[in-house]
Amino acid sequence: MMLTLKELAQLCDAEIQDEHSSLEISAAADIMNAEVSQVTVLSNAKYTKYLANTKASACFISSKFSTEGAPEGLVFLSCDDPEISFLKAVNVLHPTPEITRSISKQSAIADNVTLGKNINIGAFSTIDEHSSIGDETEIYPSVHIGRNVSVGKNCRIYPNVVIYDNTQLGNNVIIHSGAIIAADGFGYKYRNNQHVKVPHVGNVIIADHVEIGANTCIDRGALGSTTIGAGSKIDNLVQLGHNNQVGRNVIICGQVGISGSCTIGDGAVLAGGVGVADHVNIGQQAVLMARSGIASDIKAGSQMFGSPAKDKKVVWRELVALSKLPELFKKFKDLESRLQKLEN
Amino acid sequence: MMLTLKELAQLCDAEIQDEHSSLEISAAADIMNAEVSQVTVLSNAKYTKYLANTKASACFISSKFSTEGAPEGLVFLSCDDPEISFLKAVNVLHPTPEITRSISKQSAIADNVTLGKNINIGAFSTIDEHSSIGDETEIYPSVHIGRNVSVGKNCRIYPNVVIYDNTQLGNNVIIHSGAIIAADGFGYKYRNNQHVKVPHVGNVIIADHVEIGANTCIDRGALGSTTIGAGSKIDNLVQLGHNNQVGRNVIICGQVGISGSCTIGDGAVLAGGVGVADHVNIGQQAVLMARSGIASDIKAGSQMFGSPAKDKKVVWRELVALSKLPELFKKFKDLESRLQKLEN
Amino acid sequence: MMLTLKELAQLCDAEIQDEHSSLEISAAADIMNAEVSQVTVLSNAKYTKYLANTKASACFISSKFSTEGAPEGLVFLSCDDPEISFLKAVNVLHPTPEITRSISKQSAIADNVTLGKNINIGAFSTIDEHSSIGDETEIYPSVHIGRNVSVGKNCRIYPNVVIYDNTQLGNNVIIHSGAIIAADGFGYKYRNNQHVKVPHVGNVIIADHVEIGANTCIDRGALGSTTIGAGSKIDNLVQLGHNNQVGRNVIICGQVGISGSCTIGDGAVLAGGVGVADHVNIGQQAVLMARSGIASDIKAGSQMFGSPAKDKKVVWRELVALSKLPELFKKFKDLESRLQKLEN
Repeated sequence: MMLTLKELAQLCDAEIQDEHSSLEISAAADIMNAEVSQVTVLSNAKYTKYLANTKASACFISSKFSTEGAPEGLVFLSCDDPEISFLKAVNVLHPTPEITRSISKQSAIADNVTLGKNINIGAFSTIDEHSSIGDETEIYPSVHIGRNVSVGKNCRIYPNVVIYDNTQLGNNVIIHSGAIIAADGFGYKYRNNQHVKVPHVGNVIIADHVEIGANTCIDRGALGSTTIGAGSKIDNLVQLGHNNQVGRNVIICGQVGISGSCTIGDGAVLAGGVGVADHVNIGQQAVLMARSGIASDIKAGSQMFGSPAKDKKVVWRELVALSKLPELFKKFKDLESRLQKLEN
Repeated sequence: MMLTLKELAQLCDAEIQDEHSSLEISAAADIMNAEVSQVTVLSNAKYTKYLANTKASACFISSKFSTEGAPEGLVFLSCDDPEISFLKAVNVLHPTPEITRSISKQSAIADNVTLGKNINIGAFSTIDEHSSIGDETEIYPSVHIGRNVSVGKNCRIYPNVVIYDNTQLGNNVIIHSGAIIAADGFGYKYRNNQHVKVPHVGNVIIADHVEIGANTCIDRGALGSTTIGAGSKIDNLVQLGHNNQVGRNVIICGQVGISGSCTIGDGAVLAGGVGVADHVNIGQQAVLMARSGIASDIKAGSQMFGSPAKDKKVVWRELVALSKLPELFKKFKDLESRLQKLEN
Repeated sequence: MMLTLKELAQLCDAEIQDEHSSLEISAAADIMNAEVSQVTVLSNAKYTKYLANTKASACFISSKFSTEGAPEGLVFLSCDDPEISFLKAVNVLHPTPEITRSISKQSAIADNVTLGKNINIGAFSTIDEHSSIGDETEIYPSVHIGRNVSVGKNCRIYPNVVIYDNTQLGNNVIIHSGAIIAADGFGYKYRNNQHVKVPHVGNVIIADHVEIGANTCIDRGALGSTTIGAGSKIDNLVQLGHNNQVGRNVIICGQVGISGSCTIGDGAVLAGGVGVADHVNIGQQAVLMARSGIASDIKAGSQMFGSPAKDKKVVWRELVALSKLPELFKKFKDLESRLQKLEN
């Protein structure tokens, strides 16, 4: 997509000097890799060192940043929020190719499914009885949607997603390939030398604007629902067990595992590889640092680290102490012998 | 599904007083969320506090529990094992809808596949040559079953499961969506600056009553078999490498990783996120606590924690000591200066 | 497949005495499990103890190993590199059954896709516009290949793999079932109480001879590419985030997670369960031991362990010290009281 700088500025909430209006911009790129006729961004002080040698033709920048040392000819787009302006530029310069929406003849849709307007259903997708697909939603190939599933408007379900029976998806939900929504949770009672399966008759309810990563698993409730609040974002290969209640705008990074029956407060952030035990409450805005293991309730706003996790400052202090521990043993021996001398 | 309390009691090994026989029950729910005309259970002392305010109409309870303080009108179903009685109630009150079993015309089944009685094969599923499907087994849509695979009776293979060639599944096996059975293990020999692939010509053998979670991977043997014993249950996103021998009634929770050529004894429990190195033997009934890292053999019945894992009591003692370590450094300095005074 | 020992020796770079030329070999097996008319290998001193009782008829062995104590009648194949000779034997004795390659009528291939010679495209696979498949490549059933994807020659794409738009695969690439290539990375900007999605308009570029495990996820670049160098091998359930640059011949074991924008040097080894934070550089040939957590740059050739990871020797010293710490507390109290006595 080719745009003039004037068009780009208007679409991205930025301002330019009139003389540059007709400059043509063909792509967006980061400041190290940008080429002639591309637009870049400077929003992080770490990257100012790349400014002098960038080949970009234009650069989003906030008034806080100095343009000193910039290459001659580099045109600045001044704006309040260069990160967001740049995201908009990426979107308009690199639009997703339009596909002609249709319902593939190679799909398998049960008779009593309700289909919205202007939807796409890819080849080899199956939709079972009593389910409904909202307007403008795109179902890619080889998606399976079970019985009595409700998919909202303007959702995007990528190839090979599986959604088990009775799931409810809000509007503007994105689910990436291979994610499995509402499989049975992992529960058994041990009797007479065998594990008796706990039936899972609950479901999964996903609110608006949730995005779910590739190959992530979200188990259905045993009784009742596993829920994910509006605006929450879940990365790839996450395990979210039965009956968890995830709040709004929660961030769950890759390979996190949450056992079951937990409550995750609004705005909490679970970094990569975090594990959470059963029946734990994570307070709002809490930050669980990468690879933390959480076995008990976490207060709102706290920042936790380690496994078992503690306040991150406490953990750092312990880690520093541990690093000096081999030395302490030597000093201790020395002290012991000095004491012995005195005693003798 | 609506049942009278009399019917429910009979189906769930419980007893009621005759006067309540005709009470109608429509659903099962936990004690906090149950509504009028629903049945709940009280089997765990933690939940007695919810008894006074439950809206349930009926409650399974063992003779060990007091019914004191229960709402007037709540009817108790007395039974020996309320957990199991309640599971039965969930199953009868929330039956899986019957599907009409059939072999989809939109599937691709090789000519010489053997198909049992009363099976279902969903749309877009493929079954390659010389494979067989046992009686009463349900294959959901978009399942791929390779060559020479044997699937037993009364199995349930959910959508998008992949089973590579030569796999053997027993009876009553459940495999959830996205699980990959018998892909090549991860083995290479490094020669002349390249990794030479170790051929994987073995297979996977899964015994009766095994359940395998969503997106779990079970690799085939390099030579010989990877085996999973009867009654073992495996959660989501587990990695089970080549040539592992998993015993009977083993529990493997979410995101566990087992490298290869390990032996897991009968009844062992691997909690969430545990990792096990190559060629390790885990004894029967051993419990590996969440996120433990296991690099050497584990005795039967032991309870391990930490990474590298040790006896859980040893680890807890070390963790307590570590938490006091920063304080110890201060005390040590104090001691040192007191000693110095004496020396001078 | 049945071969004479003479044929086998020739195919596997080994030598035998003429008198054994016509011995028939039907299979390869490890030294503990080999049966009559099977060939095994002795390449590791750990396994010499099994030599005396092996039932194998033939055994690859290097001149370094003693054949003393071997069962009478066991024939040795002498060779320079028994491991590699044995791999060749496994391949020739256990060949993958030939399939008749064809393009399934039950696939969905867009009009302007370029198809090479002698390829296979399985049932229910989809290939979108402007993509190309190289000669001799096998696409199994239910694979989805997006728009403008280039797949090289002699690749093998197992069932239910998903490859998003604009991905480039080299030659001789193997991708196991359920792997998701080039889904959007996980990136958001938080504004006005919502997470604004960072568009991902980059792609994934995978070089020759790469193998990717089952259910592994490799995210596309936000801008620019996520790249994997020639000869690198990636195990199952790995999360490789956006814009990572993986070098040549890198080994990434199961359940590793690499956040984003990292550089992994040639020949590095990431053992099972390792986690790597954003923007980290891992030097060439570095070894990250199992379950290490890497938050800062790692020098070439270093061997790291722990979380946060350190030089493995340092970590072992700390772990030994920690194991003695509870004892140190006791000794410290003792010292304290002895000192107090002296003071009084």
